[in-house]
Amino acid sequence: MTPVAPEAVAIVEAAGAHVPALLQRIEDRLGEVAASHGPDLAELAGSTIAAGGKRLRPLLVLVAAGEPSGEGEGLVRAGTAVELVHSATLVHDDVLDAAELRRGRATVVASAGREAATATGDLLFAAAFRQLVANGSVAQVQALSGAGSALAEGELLQRADAWNAEVPVERYLRRCELKTARLFEAACTLGVLEAAGGHADGRVAPLAAFGRRIGLAFQILDDVLDVSGPAERIGKHRGTDLLDGTVTLPFILAREEDRTLAALDPRAIATPERAAEVCDAIAATGALDRSRSRALDMVAEAKAELPPDLPAGQHRALELIADGVVARYA
Amino acid sequence: MTPVAPEAVAIVEAAGAHVPALLQRIEDRLGEVAASHGPDLAELAGSTIAAGGKRLRPLLVLVAAGEPSGEGEGLVRAGTAVELVHSATLVHDDVLDAAELRRGRATVVASAGREAATATGDLLFAAAFRQLVANGSVAQVQALSGAGSALAEGELLQRADAWNAEVPVERYLRRCELKTARLFEAACTLGVLEAAGGHADGRVAPLAAFGRRIGLAFQILDDVLDVSGPAERIGKHRGTDLLDGTVTLPFILAREEDRTLAALDPRAIATPERAAEVCDAIAATGALDRSRSRALDMVAEAKAELPPDLPAGQHRALELIADGVVARYA
Repeated sequence: MTPVAPEAVAIVEAAGAHVPALLQRIEDRLGEVAASHGPDLAELAGSTIAAGGKRLRPLLVLVAAGEPSGEGEGLVRAGTAVELVHSATLVHDDVLDAAELRRGRATVVASAGREAATATGDLLFAAAFRQLVANGSVAQVQALSGAGSALAEGELLQRADAWNAEVPVERYLRRCELKTARLFEAACTLGVLEAAGGHADGRVAPLAAFGRRIGLAFQILDDVLDVSGPAERIGKHRGTDLLDGTVTLPFILAREEDRTLAALDPRAIATPERAAEVCDAIAATGALDRSRSRALDMVAEAKAELPPDLPAGQHRALELIADGVVARYA
Repeated sequence: MTPVAPEAVAIVEAAGAHVPALLQRIEDRLGEVAASHGPDLAELAGSTIAAGGKRLRPLLVLVAAGEPSGEGEGLVRAGTAVELVHSATLVHDDVLDAAELRRGRATVVASAGREAATATGDLLFAAAFRQLVANGSVAQVQALSGAGSALAEGELLQRADAWNAEVPVERYLRRCELKTARLFEAACTLGVLEAAGGHADGRVAPLAAFGRRIGLAFQILDDVLDVSGPAERIGKHRGTDLLDGTVTLPFILAREEDRTLAALDPRAIATPERAAEVCDAIAATGALDRSRSRALDMVAEAKAELPPDLPAGQHRALELIADGVVARYA
């Protein structure tokens, strides 16, 4: 199985042939980590890691780094570490949501219970730092631990705001920044830091800002897709956010246009059928297009952050990644 | 509130007056970390951190380091980091066990639900690395992330072995090593590394071995106390391990002596009353004394690891800590 999705072919063409080779090594490393803690963990963590997804964060590490001068072992570690932190949060999110399916497979929590899922997430998180610390860079560990704190803080914020339809856009965006954007930012930061080999590098700040902005756009689009619900999202109903009390941008914007929605208590949305109706009402206000438009603005801002003196292929690849974040399932 | 328990006075006298001062700074730092992520976390994490306990792991960091040449800021960070990892595991263990009380206070999971507890534990874990990485030492981060992995692996092993009365002593000891001893080892390692200021130091290996051995003894005694159940253990029934399927050394040793116990299916122990009866049966075989004796042997081995050329006060303080591990509640 190649880890490069079809839509990533253009990115790889622009970024260089080293990218798929390094992605494959990251894939192998993830498998090794899952296998290195006994058969129970291999099964538990392996199923989450193998369910895979797009490996967007490792891809960001590699493309932000540019072509490596050596074998790229440090980039493999950094990409693996970022994906392990992401996997840890997936496992823990599933504990929180008691989700039964993720990407069409049984989740850890469904197959082994909350106990094993909590411990598995902890182990993946610790394993991320064990990978990364081998790069010998304090700044890299700092970037990843900051993102790790942010992820958990974002989760707490989301729980604190659950069922609150009055949540302001700024607070929603803050939550997206913590839950999603900071890890995208960290991925870019790690790539640049590793490429710079411990030297100060002027690309860290702009590429970190690029990563943060496409992370925000990514989360907004995720929230749009939860309402619009394309058929490609196998195994997920529309309106899962509404059902678990997570108030997102489409609902916030729709409430400004539709008095019935504004008067709706989110706790009253109790069935998938009712959630689908509310999704239709949200879509009818144009809030999905306006949300997408916010995401597109952020992608444009992200591209504007890119230093003009980046190698042309790397510049192009980062632009393609940014576009891909909002073109998903569209 | 002073963080130094009465039984620690002798340790402090031997180790030096800098120890209580640094322990107080660690206490303050823990409070700052809990307060730095918004009021929700301050309440959730603060209650676990404030419940406190003996701060044995930070004490190990400080005593393993010896008297600091400077202000000891790096030791404060290391001690805080170790205690944050310990607190994170307490919060997650409570999720796993759905415990309602810890040290007489409502647990995070009882007061705020599994969701907040999982995220709170994650945040404390990430915060530990954010503290530690400021010391600028890759070796320190390596030591703590290794211990973090071990903790989670130990938890998984315990779940895998749940309800299995046939579990061999070696496997029980391996679980104790992962769940408890590795963090004690890391505490000693961090202390020596920080004191050595990044230089290779011959004390790392023996003090790490010392920490690991007293960690094993600590866990064995914990498991003895769960069966013997002194009145000091407020809020805990005897035999909680039996009730949640955790097979520990006293039960393993007792099964070798008592055919009725050997034939007992742990799943049949369904009530606190029945658990108390089984505890009595275990005690009647002498298995508690034999378990304590194993713990005492390990303490003796731990002391034998101490380099003879340690300063006399530091040497004495470490011996007192080792003795204290098995003298608890006795």
